[in-house]
Order: sequence, then structure tokens, then C-alpha cells
Amino acid sequence: MKDVILELARIAQAVSGNEDPRQQAVTIVELISESMMVDVCSLYMAEEDGDMLLLASHGLSSSAVGRTRLPQGKGLVGLVAQSRHPINTDNAQQHSAYLYLAETHEERFQSFCGVPLVRRGRVIGVLVVQGRQSRQISQQEEAFLVTLASQLSLLLDGVSVAIAQPRNSNVRRTGVKGSSGVGIGSVLLCGGTELYGVADCPCADSELTIERWHQLLAQVRSDIETQQRTLDPEFSSSIAAVFEAYQLLLSDKALIDSVEQQIRQGHDLPSALKRSIQQLSDLFLSMDDPYLRARHEDIQHLGNKLYSAWLGEDLRNTTVDGPVVLVGAQVGIAEIAQVPAEQLMGIICYEGSSLSHTAVVAKAMGIPAVLGVGALRGINGGETIIVDGNQGQVILRPSASLVAEFGKLVNDDNELLSQLANLRDLPAQTTDGEVIRLFTNTGLLADIAPGVRHGAEGVGLYRTEIPFMVYDNFPSEDEQVSTYRKILDAYPDKPVCMRTLDIGGDKQLPYFPIANEENPALGWRGIRFCLDNVQLLMTQVRAMLRAAQGKNNLRILLPMVSASEELDSFRELLLDACQQLWQEGYQVSQPRLGVMVEVPATISQLERWSTQIDFVSIGSNDLSQYLLALDRNNARVAQRYDPVHPSVLAEIKRVVDIAQRCDLPLSVCGEMASDPVAVVLLLGMGVKTLSLSAPRLPRIKCLLRSLSAADAQTLWYEIAELDRAQQIRNRVGDFLRGKGLEALCR
Amino acid sequence: MKDVILELARIAQAVSGNEDPRQQAVTIVELISESMMVDVCSLYMAEEDGDMLLLASHGLSSSAVGRTRLPQGKGLVGLVAQSRHPINTDNAQQHSAYLYLAETHEERFQSFCGVPLVRRGRVIGVLVVQGRQSRQISQQEEAFLVTLASQLSLLLDGVSVAIAQPRNSNVRRTGVKGSSGVGIGSVLLCGGTELYGVADCPCADSELTIERWHQLLAQVRSDIETQQRTLDPEFSSSIAAVFEAYQLLLSDKALIDSVEQQIRQGHDLPSALKRSIQQLSDLFLSMDDPYLRARHEDIQHLGNKLYSAWLGEDLRNTTVDGPVVLVGAQVGIAEIAQVPAEQLMGIICYEGSSLSHTAVVAKAMGIPAVLGVGALRGINGGETIIVDGNQGQVILRPSASLVAEFGKLVNDDNELLSQLANLRDLPAQTTDGEVIRLFTNTGLLADIAPGVRHGAEGVGLYRTEIPFMVYDNFPSEDEQVSTYRKILDAYPDKPVCMRTLDIGGDKQLPYFPIANEENPALGWRGIRFCLDNVQLLMTQVRAMLRAAQGKNNLRILLPMVSASEELDSFRELLLDACQQLWQEGYQVSQPRLGVMVEVPATISQLERWSTQIDFVSIGSNDLSQYLLALDRNNARVAQRYDPVHPSVLAEIKRVVDIAQRCDLPLSVCGEMASDPVAVVLLLGMGVKTLSLSAPRLPRIKCLLRSLSAADAQTLWYEIAELDRAQQIRNRVGDFLRGKGLEALCR
Repeated sequence: MKDVILELARIAQAVSGNEDPRQQAVTIVELISESMMVDVCSLYMAEEDGDMLLLASHGLSSSAVGRTRLPQGKGLVGLVAQSRHPINTDNAQQHSAYLYLAETHEERFQSFCGVPLVRRGRVIGVLVVQGRQSRQISQQEEAFLVTLASQLSLLLDGVSVAIAQPRNSNVRRTGVKGSSGVGIGSVLLCGGTELYGVADCPCADSELTIERWHQLLAQVRSDIETQQRTLDPEFSSSIAAVFEAYQLLLSDKALIDSVEQQIRQGHDLPSALKRSIQQLSDLFLSMDDPYLRARHEDIQHLGNKLYSAWLGEDLRNTTVDGPVVLVGAQVGIAEIAQVPAEQLMGIICYEGSSLSHTAVVAKAMGIPAVLGVGALRGINGGETIIVDGNQGQVILRPSASLVAEFGKLVNDDNELLSQLANLRDLPAQTTDGEVIRLFTNTGLLADIAPGVRHGAEGVGLYRTEIPFMVYDNFPSEDEQVSTYRKILDAYPDKPVCMRTLDIGGDKQLPYFPIANEENPALGWRGIRFCLDNVQLLMTQVRAMLRAAQGKNNLRILLPMVSASEELDSFRELLLDACQQLWQEGYQVSQPRLGVMVEVPATISQLERWSTQIDFVSIGSNDLSQYLLALDRNNARVAQRYDPVHPSVLAEIKRVVDIAQRCDLPLSVCGEMASDPVAVVLLLGMGVKTLSLSAPRLPRIKCLLRSLSAADAQTLWYEIAELDRAQQIRNRVGDFLRGKGLEALCR
Repeated sequence: MKDVILELARIAQAVSGNEDPRQQAVTIVELISESMMVDVCSLYMAEEDGDMLLLASHGLSSSAVGRTRLPQGKGLVGLVAQSRHPINTDNAQQHSAYLYLAETHEERFQSFCGVPLVRRGRVIGVLVVQGRQSRQISQQEEAFLVTLASQLSLLLDGVSVAIAQPRNSNVRRTGVKGSSGVGIGSVLLCGGTELYGVADCPCADSELTIERWHQLLAQVRSDIETQQRTLDPEFSSSIAAVFEAYQLLLSDKALIDSVEQQIRQGHDLPSALKRSIQQLSDLFLSMDDPYLRARHEDIQHLGNKLYSAWLGEDLRNTTVDGPVVLVGAQVGIAEIAQVPAEQLMGIICYEGSSLSHTAVVAKAMGIPAVLGVGALRGINGGETIIVDGNQGQVILRPSASLVAEFGKLVNDDNELLSQLANLRDLPAQTTDGEVIRLFTNTGLLADIAPGVRHGAEGVGLYRTEIPFMVYDNFPSEDEQVSTYRKILDAYPDKPVCMRTLDIGGDKQLPYFPIANEENPALGWRGIRFCLDNVQLLMTQVRAMLRAAQGKNNLRILLPMVSASEELDSFRELLLDACQQLWQEGYQVSQPRLGVMVEVPATISQLERWSTQIDFVSIGSNDLSQYLLALDRNNARVAQRYDPVHPSVLAEIKRVVDIAQRCDLPLSVCGEMASDPVAVVLLLGMGVKTLSLSAPRLPRIKCLLRSLSAADAQTLWYEIAELDRAQQIRNRVGDFLRGKGLEALCR
């Protein structure tokens, strides 16, 4: 018997060379019949109506392939699909479910073993082997087939989709959400000048080529400097560090020497560059740490940039007409900066993760972005494409009706936003007079202006790790003072909740990689990391206190607190920091202190802690993740994640009740705070403060001003009886539609 | 400025060649002073009393190194340590904290920048750079030094320990807990004949060598067959599959051909074997999936085994005297089987994880095992070693007093266990008449006999994934029927709770690797996996129902349920399976159905589900892990994990109350059920059923028979006021000591 993993690897490799799903199916049945030494191997796939189509067969009559269909539930194949378990018999004809189909000529085969192909709980097909001799397929062979089928269904999902969706337009590709929003535009390909495609060429004069190499470096350095200067000042301070990283790479002796060495070994400049960049990129790719691994994109992009410059081409020589979507293996920050902001509708990267610099910048600019969609082969510059950053998908070759549909979405949104602008200075007051405070979440300095512009009444969550992420080292106390002062100054007399450094989990610092954690979400992060590296926390707290000197608006928020010991340790440290600064002559005052409610263990301790803290903030993303034991970034389970799950709502209500009883101000700062369905329920539970990203503020304010708190409360008691997230979404959706508020809810 | 990550890599590489901590310190200060271009770089390390010892310096007088000490809190260095933040000044002498130490001759240096070295929240040292010119160290240099220091403290932890603990005996090495218990014995080195040490040698006659290769294969195959036959029958059925894996590898055409090819290319048999094994091992090591990756050990072990056979050596030719601990890079199952069970006190592997076959087998045999301790260089066969499987540590060269101490532990334990044997048929009844039911947890068929022998009143948790793990493919329905029937037969008329396949997380099947999950504990596992691969669940449920035909003791337990949809889907499937089997003529009956309470979201839904389920079982390990958002297998945070955390206890009490109110039988089946402190508290909360591993049963029964439920309840109300796990442990520990029960509590 073959090893099933090796067999699967063999099949996966064989089908990878072919993009036609029917051809892939043929390859699969040929390989299986060969390795299992059976007379027949057939693949049946479910059509939309449940009929089973004989898609490919080794052994059955070729005239039946692609034509023969078994009606739902009929025949042995239908029984396998319906019962969801293998059928293994040494005499198929005598089985009660046997159905004779003349065109297959299967009467020659007595033994039959069929196993279901299942994907996401649904039977998508049946894999059958048959044999001439009346000998039963052995238990071992059946087990092998079941195991093979369990993995094959992953491979065959594409075949299944292709059969259900044969047309070539409206092709959807799923990736990672990089930045929310929807955009439509014509494709502008980036990095068309791919360094990796360069052929090896010998070099005639190595000294001259090395000289040319240094000229090229100088030219690109100066190009980047120019770009740095011409950046939109609103987000320049955040992005400067990224450009700085390119400049550092361009000055890296390792890269410079490596290219020189390749040239001395006889390569011309492009092939020397290709080889050196590849080596450097491989080095990063081999690193365990996901953040460092993601940095290989920067290296490759830089390589392409150097090559473009060598070719004398550059994006800025391309004229950009109308709305544009940047598409490429990677899309560099320099390329983003070259397209006028009002024309840039979206960004699509074949590679990359939500940690890529591209994603960080797209979020800061409010441009929809989807990353990691895989290579979009055959895509042409100029064709229309849709980027749906909300769903993390892109739509290739959209039909006119789909373009119109998404176009309407975009237009309605824009129109709505311009209408909402006049709410800026009005309170988020419900129709029955309840006033909800709307704070904003920020992290990049670039977020400050939009927050103020959209009327935020303070900062509910300032993520201090984001400025840490763009540095090359831990920022010094003075550097942090200057950063924090900017945000405190932008919100005079309004509260600014600064969360202490919350790295770990999915947030990594390039200069402090926390690698090799099996479950980083349950690992060394938040306050745990900071108390173990207490010197970093001390510097940060000192910087916060110094920045807040003479102001009254600093609040400190602690992430991932789960035990009294942690809270006590932090309070001691805070007092120590104050005393140090008083001794040094600073006039600092003790800020209000709050904890994030995100670790479930926090809930039952809140009452006990209420005398030691001044406020709480529910981090609904992490709280839902831990309560449901579901990583929403994991595509295999993400569809099961919904924060309006009845248990998540019940636990949040528990927190709201404790906070009310203990007189602790409470806010909600996760994505629930900008999800209209969740906002209605939070209002119904008695939540009085929400903190959300600036672009979502006007919409949520308008929603709150259109609702009555009493109605929301009634609705909350009603849905507390429902036991499925989808039922809850439907019920609240009906409620909002009943009030004519559907436009606010997209 | 240098890149901090590259600089760290350079330092780590430079010190890795030297095992003397003082020499390492010298290397570190030399490299830093060179890369930062400063006149002085010094490393001060904290001694036990808090004084700071000048351990190494580039630039200060060499006569001061290793001698100069700064009393705690004194001088700039003391201030850095005390305040836990950097001090950076351009004129050290004028700083109020400056303390002049003549022997260092540091009066020549004006600028001073000192940063604390912190490990697990404690200052372990101070790193200082100083400069001749009165120019302040720049902000960038300070930031670089802070970042370097944050990572250096990981490297310097060993130096710190070495300074505090200079003597060479009682050296502790920490690894992974493979199997619990403590053992003392003399080292028996395994795999001393290391294939990897073989030098490349040419081969004189390739045809003859190939013939010898096939003879060697045949010989080793037959050796293994002999060992298979002579295995202790109690655990043979579980281990047979592992031997089977070796036999499969020995018949693997890829391996056989690869060695032949190496021989044809001119290598002699050992070097041909070495090269082929290395290739195959590298192939496994490159796999993403942790389970498959762990399989490279099997390959290497097999290579060593083949080489041993070629040398004509084998462990069975060694006479084993007295108690023995097997020690080696890997310890193979064949080697374990060669040592008489009564002499085998423990197993230590340099490599390996808790998923290694060695760990599975050690657990089944009840032999203490610690894996992944790293190479124990300089260890000699015959020297005494202590294996502490409870703490996951080994102690090299233990002092006589430590041997005596651990020896007493072992003896007391053995004596206690023999005393407890007479409790076998008595109930676990408290002194005030409360009867607690004690079930056992099992998975390997080898666990059945010990469970029955120790008087288990049923199986509280049968982990069906363990039999799945030893197969090469998903076991067929008939194979599963036969396995399940054995366990149901072993407990006639006693409940057997079979948990449906719970793979994913840290449990992987070799033939269905779930790779590339960022957070597997929050991923595709338990019921989520099974409902997506519903055909596997259908086969398993059919097999359980068929195995239970004519019996009344099957119960089905669902893992990781977090939503009503999941419970509904399973109940539909169960009904479908019954109907299918009735139609096929089987006389099966619907079993009782329960859910694990391990996902926190389950708790608030239990009341709603109580009409659809028949019982619940608290999986305290996973429940604690999710409530605390702490992966207890992660060494960076494991010390923060304790299931007697006040919040975990509060949530368990919540579950107990709901279950009582809804009349749902409840058991606790995680490690809390065998932790005496937790057991007292569970008794106090009103838990009536515990399920634990068989070897722990007698101890817990004796404990329960020594307690009064009323006392436990009083204690529970008292500790519910405490807010730290350690306080709770201390309080319950006092209570148990007060009753003279400390011997039961180890």
C-alpha cells in the first residue's frame, strides 16, 4: 500500500500543471487507478440540483464521461452521497441500491467501493473504484481511499466551483483583508518589470558595471528622497519610516558587496542584481518570525525598483487616467504615492499578509486593499476590477450589472458621507434623549486629523504599538514623549486612552521578534510581555506622563490583564514612575487607569478590581475570539465567527451590568462598535460609550440619532431569547429596515 | 547604525562557540564596543544580594573586572537597576548618583549610557557604554542599546544563572513533559552508535554491498518481528502500530532504492545509509506540520538501528544492572522494550516533543519521561540522573542529598500506592457520606487494564483520536467497531463516554495534517473539523453504535461545541446514523449525548441546551486555557497558568450551578480532577463525578475518603474571597496539612 501523504503530493503536483478542472479530474482518476491497481476509478461531482455527473473515469466507457448523470439519491453513488459513508461490496449488482446505466458498460465490474468527497460539511462528489474480480476491496484499501478522499476534496473544491460556475466573468478570488472599503477601477499593473524574469547574461567590463551599479544606487536613493519630500503631508510622518527602511537597505553593505561580487564573477548588472536580491529575499523567507518573513516583500520590491530604474522606466512616466486599482505581486509604497489620491480606488497584492507595510499604509489612507490573493494570471492592464476590502475578495472581469451594483454602493456611500458631514458637531443623541459618547481608535499619527474632522469626542483607544512598529529600535523616552504629545495636543480637554504596548499575538516588532509560538494569540503578549520586559514599560509610562504634563486628558489602558498580580504590578510601576519624575522635577500627575476586557477571566474579577481602576474598555475582537475559541483570521473557521453570537452578547451584557453596579465607566472599542447590528444591541444593553475608526464615525452617529434607546432595549430583551447569530442578525436587520435605516448598515 | 537583528545574530553566533559564561560576557562587550564605536562597554550582573558585579569590560581597567561590586542601588549603575529605565548623560561625574570607584579608572570617561537588562520582570544586570568626549550618546544610540539589551537578556540568562549557581552538580535542564512521575537511575546511553558520525568511505564492490544491504534489511525486519512478539502483552496492541510503521519504512522503495543508488555512486554501506537517511529525515523536517516533522525522529532512529545491526551491536547484548534511565537523542520503542520494565525508571530524549511516539508509549507504561532537553554533552553511561516528569526537568550529577530527597519521594509514593491498593473496591465516599464517582480517562487500549485494576467506575473520557493517531489511514468502520468494542466490553454495565474525534490543536493525524494555522488552539479542531468532514464523523458514529449493539453503556461526548448549530447538526447526524443502521438490520439504540464544557461560550448556552443533551463534562485544561487566554505549553507564559485561578474556579462554579439547576449530570475530566488542591475545591463546589488517569485514581480516592464534604464547602466559600491562585493554593495546602494529608498531595 502506498503512503497516502506521498500519493497526495504526487497527485497535487500532477494537477498543478493544468488549469482545466476536467483535465485535472482525468489526471486524478488515472493516478489513483494506477497506484491502487484497480480496473476502474471514477469521479462523480455533484451538480447544483444534487445530480451526480460522471466527470472522469479510468475504465468506464469514455462515451459516458461528461454525460452520465445519476439523479439525486439514486444508485450506489447516490447512496454514498446521501448516507455520507463508504459503501464497499463485492457484488454491486446484487446491492439493493444498484442502478444499471447501460452507457457505462459497468456490468463487467463486480466489486465496488465508493467514498464521499466532502467540503465544509457538504458532499461535493463521490470517488469510486471498481474491480473485475468478485473480490471485495480490502479494509486497508477502503481506509486508504477514505483518507485520500478526505484530502482530495480540498483539491477538488476548485473543480466543484468550476462546474457550478462555468462562465469566465465575475471570477471571485479571496485573499486577506488589507484595508476596508469597496473600489472599482481599471487595473494598473505594478512591477511589470519583474527582476525575477531576467535571464543570466555575461558582463563585458566588470569595473564599468560596478561603477554603473553605484550610479544606480545613488539615482534610486535620490528618487526616493524626492518621493519622501512630495508625500501627502497628512500621512508622511508615519510612512517616512518605511521609506527610511528602503534607504537603509540601499545603503546595506551586504547587498552592495553581494552585487559587486556577482559582477566580478562575470554577471551583468541585471542578473547580478537578480541573484543578490534572491539570496537576500530567501534569507528573510527562511525566518520563523512572520513579521520578518513578510519583509522579503520589501527586498523584492526594492529589487524591481532598481531594475526599473536601470531600464529607465518608472511608473511616474505612465499617465494615469480615471479611477485606478494598483495590482501586482507586491505594490510598493512608492508606487502608491505616484498615483493621485483621488484616482486611487484600491490595491491588490498577489502576495502579502495583513502585516505588510502596504496594508498599514492603505488603512491610513482609507484605500480598500486585498492582499494574498495569489497570482492573477492573464490579467491585463486597463481591464475593470472590483476590490472588496470588506469581504477580502476581488472580482475579475465583473459583468456590467455587477459593476453597476458595486458602483451604486460606492456612490451611495460617498453621498451618504457628504450628507453626514453636517452632523459633525451634533451629539450622538437618541430620539428619546440618551447621549452616547463616540470616541475614535487611532494608532498612526495620520489618524489624528480624520478623527478630529469627524467629530470624535476623544480617543477611546490609542494603539501605542503602531508607532513602535515603524521604528528600527525601541523608540527612546524622548521620542515617545514627542509622539504622545502630538496626540494629546490634538484632543485638548478630551480624554485620550493610551493603551500600553500590546505586541505579541499578530503584532510583531521587527526588532523584537517573538518567534516560534505555537499559539501566539494565547502567548507572550500585552501586559504579560510588558511586565516581563518591565524596563520597556517603565520608559513608556514615563514618556506618557511627561507628554501629559500640564494637560488633564491622559488615561492609561492596560491590554490582556487576566490576574490581580498583573494589575498590582502595574500600579506599583506607575507610582514608581511618578515618584521618579517628581524627583527629576517634572510636574506630572497620576492619570486615570483602565483595563481592557478581552481575556474572559477578567469578567469575574471586575467587581473586585473596581476600587483599583477608573474605567474599563471592552475589546470585542479579542474577547469574542477567546470566548468562541475561534481565530477569525483562520480561513478554515472564520465563517463560524460572529461577535453577535448569543454567548458573546451574554458575556458583554454581564460586563455592562457589573460596570453599572460598580460605577465604572465602560466603552466598547472593537469592531462591534462600528457594526450597525451590534451597535443597536449595545445601545439596548445600556452601553454609553463607543470607540471606532474615524471613517465609520458619521455613519454610527447618524444611526444612533435615528434610534430610540427604549426601542433598542426592547429589541435586546427579545433577541436574548434567540440562540443563533444568524437569527439575531436577521431580527435586528428587520428592525433597522423597518426604520428605513438600511443605507447606514452596509 | 547597525541593524539590531543582525548585530544580535552576530553576538549569538560568537558566544555559541564558548560555554564559559565569563568568556561569553567578554565576547559580548568586545563586539558591542566595536559596533557602536565607543571607548567603554561594560556588563554588570546582579548577584543574589542585589550587588552589581562588573563581569566584563572593554575599556575599564582589567584589574577591576570580576572584582568591582556596586552595592545595591548605588552609583549610576545601581540607579539604572533600581529605576528600570536608561540613564544617558554627557557628564557622569556631575550626576547626583555618581559614585567614584578608583580601581576602574573611569574618571577618563565623561559620557555615560546605562540600560537595564531584564528577564521575567527582574533586573539581572546593566549594560553600560561610556565615552571619552563629553558628547552625549545620541537618542538613536540609546534606542539601539535598549533594543539590544532587551534581547541580550535572553542570552545572558544563562550567565546570570551560572553566576548565582557556579557549582557543577545538581545541574537542572528543562524540557517538555513527556510522561509524569519521578525516577532515579543510572544513565544507559541509547544510539551511541550514531549513524551521523560515520565518515564517507568508498566501496570496493558495489554489487556485493547492495547484496549486503538487502541482507541487513531482512535481518532488521526479522529483529523487529521478534521484538513485536516478545512485547509486554498489556500494551502490545497500542505499540504494534508503531512497530508497523518501522516495518513499512523498511519496505519503503524510496529508501531501498536511494541506498542502492548511493552505493552505485561509490559509497560503502554505512555512508550510503547515512546519506539516504539524512535526505529522508530532511524531507520530514521541512514539513510544516508539527506531527509529520516529529516523524523525522523515527527515520533517524531507524537509521541508527540499521547501522547498529551492521556493526553487529545491539542493546540486548548489554547487561542491564539495577535501575536504569534511558538517555539519547531519541530513544526508540525497541530500546524501551529491551529493558526489563521493573528496571526502567525513566526516559530522557534530547530531541522530541510531547507528540513523539516515545512520549505516548512512556505514558501508557507509566514511565517518567522528559523530552526535548537538548544535547546533554559530557554525560557518561552509568552516572546517576534524576528524571522529573512532573516538572519536565532532569537533574544531572545530583548531590547525594538530592538523590536521597527524590529517592524518598519515589519510595513514599510506591509505599503509598501499595497501601492504597486495598481501597480498590471501596467507594470514594467522604467522611460525611457524600459519594463521588471516579471515572478514568483513556485512549490507548493499554489504559484499559490499569483503569479496571484501579477500580474505575467507568470511562469518563475515551479519547478516540489516540487510536486514529497510530494508524496510517483513517481506520475503516469495521476497524473502529473492533477497537470500540474492546473498551465497551472491559466496562460492562459501566458508562463509557466516547468523545468524537478531537484532532486539530496540538493533536495531528499523520495522514491528515492540518498545517499552517497561526493559532491551532483556536482553529480547525474538535466538532468543527468533524462537521466539515462529516463523512469521517458518520463512519465513527456508525462504528460506535455498532460496537455498542446489545450493550447499554455507550455515551457520546462532543468536543469544542460552541454554537447551537453544531449541536443540532450532530443530533441530525446521529439520528441519520441510527436510521441507516436500523435499515441495514443492526439493533442499535440511541446513546446518551453530552458536550464538553471547554469553549467559554458554552457556559451561557448550557441552560438552553439542557433539554437536548444528557450530561456535560468540564474539560478543565482547555477551559482554563481559553478563559485565561494562556497556552500552557508555551514556556514564555506557562508560569502564569494555574487552573485554580479565581476566575477559572468562578466559571466552573457557574457551570456546576447551571447543571444542578437543569438536572444535568456533570463530571470534570481535565487535570484538575487529579490535582488534590483542585479536587478539594471541586468537592466544595458540589462536583459529584471526576474522571482522571488510572494511576492517579487510588490517591484521589483516598483523599476523598479522608475529607468531609461540609468542610470542603466551607473552605470553598472562604477561598472564593481570595484573588490570587497562589493564595488559594496556600490556603488549601494549609487545610490539607492540617488534616495530615500532605503525602497524598504530591
